[in-house]
Amino acid sequence: MAEAALPDVDAETMAAVREGMTAAEYRGREYRYLGSPVRGVERGTVEMAGAFVRGYPSTPRVLVLDPGVPRFFDGPIAVEEKLNGYNVRIAHVGEPLAITRGGHVCPYTTRVARDQLPLEAFFAEYPETMLCAEFVGPENPYTAHDVYDVDSLAPRVFDLRHRETGRPWPVEKRRSTLAGFEIPQPSFVGVFDPEEAVRAVREAIRELDAAGREGVVMQSTDGRDLLKYTTAATHRSDLEMAFSLPFDYGQDFLFSRLIREAFQAVEFGERGQALEERAHGLGEAILEPMVETIRTVGEGQLIGEDHTVRGSPEAVAELLAHFEDQGLSIEIRSDRRAGDQRVVHLTKVANQSRDKIQHFLEGGTIDQ
Amino acid sequence: MAEAALPDVDAETMAAVREGMTAAEYRGREYRYLGSPVRGVERGTVEMAGAFVRGYPSTPRVLVLDPGVPRFFDGPIAVEEKLNGYNVRIAHVGEPLAITRGGHVCPYTTRVARDQLPLEAFFAEYPETMLCAEFVGPENPYTAHDVYDVDSLAPRVFDLRHRETGRPWPVEKRRSTLAGFEIPQPSFVGVFDPEEAVRAVREAIRELDAAGREGVVMQSTDGRDLLKYTTAATHRSDLEMAFSLPFDYGQDFLFSRLIREAFQAVEFGERGQALEERAHGLGEAILEPMVETIRTVGEGQLIGEDHTVRGSPEAVAELLAHFEDQGLSIEIRSDRRAGDQRVVHLTKVANQSRDKIQHFLEGGTIDQ
Repeated sequence: MAEAALPDVDAETMAAVREGMTAAEYRGREYRYLGSPVRGVERGTVEMAGAFVRGYPSTPRVLVLDPGVPRFFDGPIAVEEKLNGYNVRIAHVGEPLAITRGGHVCPYTTRVARDQLPLEAFFAEYPETMLCAEFVGPENPYTAHDVYDVDSLAPRVFDLRHRETGRPWPVEKRRSTLAGFEIPQPSFVGVFDPEEAVRAVREAIRELDAAGREGVVMQSTDGRDLLKYTTAATHRSDLEMAFSLPFDYGQDFLFSRLIREAFQAVEFGERGQALEERAHGLGEAILEPMVETIRTVGEGQLIGEDHTVRGSPEAVAELLAHFEDQGLSIEIRSDRRAGDQRVVHLTKVANQSRDKIQHFLEGGTIDQ
Repeated sequence: MAEAALPDVDAETMAAVREGMTAAEYRGREYRYLGSPVRGVERGTVEMAGAFVRGYPSTPRVLVLDPGVPRFFDGPIAVEEKLNGYNVRIAHVGEPLAITRGGHVCPYTTRVARDQLPLEAFFAEYPETMLCAEFVGPENPYTAHDVYDVDSLAPRVFDLRHRETGRPWPVEKRRSTLAGFEIPQPSFVGVFDPEEAVRAVREAIRELDAAGREGVVMQSTDGRDLLKYTTAATHRSDLEMAFSLPFDYGQDFLFSRLIREAFQAVEFGERGQALEERAHGLGEAILEPMVETIRTVGEGQLIGEDHTVRGSPEAVAELLAHFEDQGLSIEIRSDRRAGDQRVVHLTKVANQSRDKIQHFLEGGTIDQ
């Protein structure tokens, strides 16, 4: 039997992709995932039982809307809200499975997806399509934010793509099809000409920023060209999170947010008080979480990312096992029942920040 | 004839040092310098006409004075001001020469040193000793600061070491010998027991910070163990400089200053308003120079580090040639005579920041 292959991918690339894949297992089913992109084939691409699920492509970003947006697009632009959660592809590979950005089948998200989305009906009609969803809400094992109208954790499907080619559906067809299944989607800002889009996006960004939300995704109406732009609230919240664990995040994560802030301040024409306010917010987002973390380590307490997760006892147990498989150090803060659900408050312990901070607090030196 | 070698360095290390050296030339005299440290032999070590000048060692830093200082030292600690200029070793190698931290003979600094220091008298008595000096002041080709009582550029000798072994003189002997030659030195805070030193240094740091000065160097009275600690004013001024050319500085330069601020805020017990003020100052030091630079690039103006240099026409010409040799892109802003001196205001052009900023201002995208 010939090995399965990705359509639109030549044999040489296919061989390199296979070479780059890592073996993993989900409930006794073996699969392989691509941990980093290979020759244009996206990170997170998965092969399971001879079927492929393409990784979600990375979306380029502009630092200035004008002339960034009109230069990037040459036709009408659909603008939708970009949500701040975690990106999962849901595909039918023998059964509906939720696959993380990095290519791991996530049993917890798979259960939530099956509970909340009409997957059987959808895949009965579109077996070759994958749902690309952002899982948002406060009870979130990866990226918890409280700014969406979600009590626990819920998906918002922002893209439909062919499972093996990764080709996206046109925006309008995607939104109307999802609406037909009553599948929740990110909010829709509108369709604009490139020149109009600059003003429309600026306005949307001001509103989203005031609401503490992330930003927008712009795309050609055929869904093929994507571009993103984010709010100051997001830059600040990213910095707060990163500087609360300063030695666990890459310096480029920190630096990139600072750069975005500077270009946004320039594009928004900020001077005097407006610029000062942005600077002060930035300084607070950097210094205060870091100071709090150093004090926490000084008091001998754990530091890390706090998360609350809720679900059936089996789903929560699978999630904890999944974290363990990934080598995360997890501390359970509380573990209780609410009806037939298990609710766990946990910390993903940040050992690297703790160790370095402890070293310096004990008077350790540094050559700098 | 046997090749010259460093005393206290074994043959294998010596061979590795030679292997690591790069050839250079100063007025027709050939020399070799070590561009990066090799097996404990310092970066900036120079060999010229069979004689060696050891590089200046890097000084470790503590992020907290308590328990950093008492843990590092086990006897009395001499505390002196650390000055913010550029570090040069002046040694007699056929003639008195000023050598930069990286191991380049700097003709400009050599002239200034010969003009301002009694080098003949000093080297007549101590031919094997090198003067380790910080060159400070506003008319400074490398690190311009206006906080010292210096009109143009002047040396402060902060260390005397054996030219070939790098062994330092004891602090008291060094200070009294330099005083005997009327050679200017950094100010002396005092000698303290390790426990006393914490309080004394904190007090000195508060005063230096208020004056916009850099910090302190602590050392064992024999001069062998050195430790440094710096003010918030310096962290901020470093950040201002770096973020005014955001793509020309390493991200670790930026990150290290942010970390220092956080540990200092914790050690100084800052909360509420004091912490907020530090955060705001930090935010301004990051955002405002970056915004100004982006605007400057947007207006089609040059960006870079501005410097003013003053000296004999020959000395200034040699400095400009030296910059050219180093591959720097220099733009002359003004060039005039003041008496028998040539005064040049120049910009070291930051091409990398300009190119990247231009790319983003033109709507270029980034995958992040």
